[in-house]
Amino acid sequence: MSARFTVTYHVRSDAASIAARAEGIAVEQSVEMPLAGIDDPGVLAGIVGRVEGIQDIGGGTFAVRIGLALATAGGDPGQFLNMLFGNTSLRDDVILRDVDIPDCFRPRVPGVPELRRRLGAGRRAFTGSALKPQGLPPERLASLAGHFARGGLDFIKDDHGLADQAYSPFSERVPMIAAAVARAVRGTRHPTRYIPSLTGDLEQMRARAELAVSCGLDCMMVAPMISGFANVWAITQAFPGVTFFAHPSMGGAARIAPELLIGKLFPALGCGAVIFPTHGGRFGYSPATCRELAENARPALPVPAGGITLDRVPELLDFYGPDTMLLIGGNLLLARERIAEEAAAFAAAVARHGSAGHGQ
Amino acid sequence: MSARFTVTYHVRSDAASIAARAEGIAVEQSVEMPLAGIDDPGVLAGIVGRVEGIQDIGGGTFAVRIGLALATAGGDPGQFLNMLFGNTSLRDDVILRDVDIPDCFRPRVPGVPELRRRLGAGRRAFTGSALKPQGLPPERLASLAGHFARGGLDFIKDDHGLADQAYSPFSERVPMIAAAVARAVRGTRHPTRYIPSLTGDLEQMRARAELAVSCGLDCMMVAPMISGFANVWAITQAFPGVTFFAHPSMGGAARIAPELLIGKLFPALGCGAVIFPTHGGRFGYSPATCRELAENARPALPVPAGGITLDRVPELLDFYGPDTMLLIGGNLLLARERIAEEAAAFAAAVARHGSAGHGQ
Repeated sequence: MSARFTVTYHVRSDAASIAARAEGIAVEQSVEMPLAGIDDPGVLAGIVGRVEGIQDIGGGTFAVRIGLALATAGGDPGQFLNMLFGNTSLRDDVILRDVDIPDCFRPRVPGVPELRRRLGAGRRAFTGSALKPQGLPPERLASLAGHFARGGLDFIKDDHGLADQAYSPFSERVPMIAAAVARAVRGTRHPTRYIPSLTGDLEQMRARAELAVSCGLDCMMVAPMISGFANVWAITQAFPGVTFFAHPSMGGAARIAPELLIGKLFPALGCGAVIFPTHGGRFGYSPATCRELAENARPALPVPAGGITLDRVPELLDFYGPDTMLLIGGNLLLARERIAEEAAAFAAAVARHGSAGHGQ
Repeated sequence: MSARFTVTYHVRSDAASIAARAEGIAVEQSVEMPLAGIDDPGVLAGIVGRVEGIQDIGGGTFAVRIGLALATAGGDPGQFLNMLFGNTSLRDDVILRDVDIPDCFRPRVPGVPELRRRLGAGRRAFTGSALKPQGLPPERLASLAGHFARGGLDFIKDDHGLADQAYSPFSERVPMIAAAVARAVRGTRHPTRYIPSLTGDLEQMRARAELAVSCGLDCMMVAPMISGFANVWAITQAFPGVTFFAHPSMGGAARIAPELLIGKLFPALGCGAVIFPTHGGRFGYSPATCRELAENARPALPVPAGGITLDRVPELLDFYGPDTMLLIGGNLLLARERIAEEAAAFAAAVARHGSAGHGQ
């Protein structure tokens, strides 16, 4: 009997049809052909998806659990995603809700404990901001990074729109920003990390990661839904000393549950931190979704973001606890010439919350 | 003034809010920060997205046209997708509906005319089937391919579930199937093409494409939403003599209009043929969607699929016209030991329809 892993789909259906719908998904996500055309007993017993359970969860929706054969994934994270949801993603009445991640996709991630060690962050939460807007030349972004670092933030990441554009080529931007942060760190004595964004095809991502390592960087950002699961896996496994922050771009909230995609699948690719739009910001995730996503992700570091303002720091830290990084981008940038002071106020608010004992 | 390209989103909104929503998307898909925090006049004038039009299309939905700066894509197809829909894909009330593809993403695709030349197909439509189920060893798949080829089909593709699994490794499967098809072709004198599926990370895809070329193959399949746009681009540009068939796996119909994703964006990556689930099959695309998708795709070859039965050949050819390939997979396989005869009946039905003058 071959090993299987369980996938949970939420399917809109009437009660009379759900058993057939469930069988249909089990076939679609495995052999993708009428069973009457299969004469091989090994395929019928060991490869065809198997409905393990159907539960009415109300509102015209059923939770369908299907066991898929691990052998069909062939150890490739891209193919794993293909088997999880490839063709079924084309239907608008099915959501991929959960997966029991197989052991072969449980790499060691340099997540919360490793980041605490690097940052000397004690038990408090982490702070971070983003370099924006795109369109600025490297010098301006480096200057901005210097302000953030002088304010004592833990992490400064490239905006996810920064790639390798003519106005800010990766090979000029990253060394310049890394140097600006290193200069500020010599003053603050706080080991602020700069997180460049890796884009392009796998070979370009690899070359950019090597350049970033040569600049002394040990944190980088990737967008798994844009770069492809197999390529992100190749990068995380090639750079085991680097903590990769997963960006949710192209995450399509409506079709794959973010608790799964961001909370489980991105860490399964070797990412040690996951960025996601928190409740109450400019995206629509609920508090329950955010809580489950964060719990799923750890020991990868959960990074709530997406329109957070300084006054929400205590509320969000009460909600997420200290094994969290708050990412405030645009709302710090509104301070313009007072950015270092605003960053310092952000860092102080997080430290204060931690030392007041809320931090666990 | 920097060059811009126009993106159309369909946004669910009330009339009172739509202007602000449109501005919000324009900012999210460009600088992703409050404009009040930007002091650079070049960024404000040249980089920030610009609302070009808002149209009430009924049903509580508005078509919003936004001009994005071409410079932000940096010539990278992955970054192009990121700018088109990266963060906005996380909202459940916005659909990416259309894009005026910029010239830098209009590669030459070896599509319909080139495939007519290779297949000697005159003005009729093309026929194809798929090798299934996964779980079979290479010998069984090669035997099946031989049956299809003896039936005179134009194309035989790997099921999109065939990757590099232990039960059918790419390096064993592809040479064996290519040889079986070549043997059949010597008998039929019809130059049937085998289309292997390329999976894995970019380096694995590249090695597999090289192996396929060494087997004399000039058609291959890729899944751009799984492999990543930048990696598919790298592959199509590295193998200009190969026609790449794009598979829609993970295409998420509900969030990106398939007319755009499959009809325009996959050919923009250099794919010369696009596979999609046709109306009336086991997926939910409407006839209008299928028609627009096919028209957008050409000169890339539109390949309707997804549960087509032999009796629908005349209807589908009337609908799509001759610059089309019909892909019948599972329903041919139901014939089991009569597969070559069933494939021949399929090829004959398409040829008959073409010679009856419908093929125009």
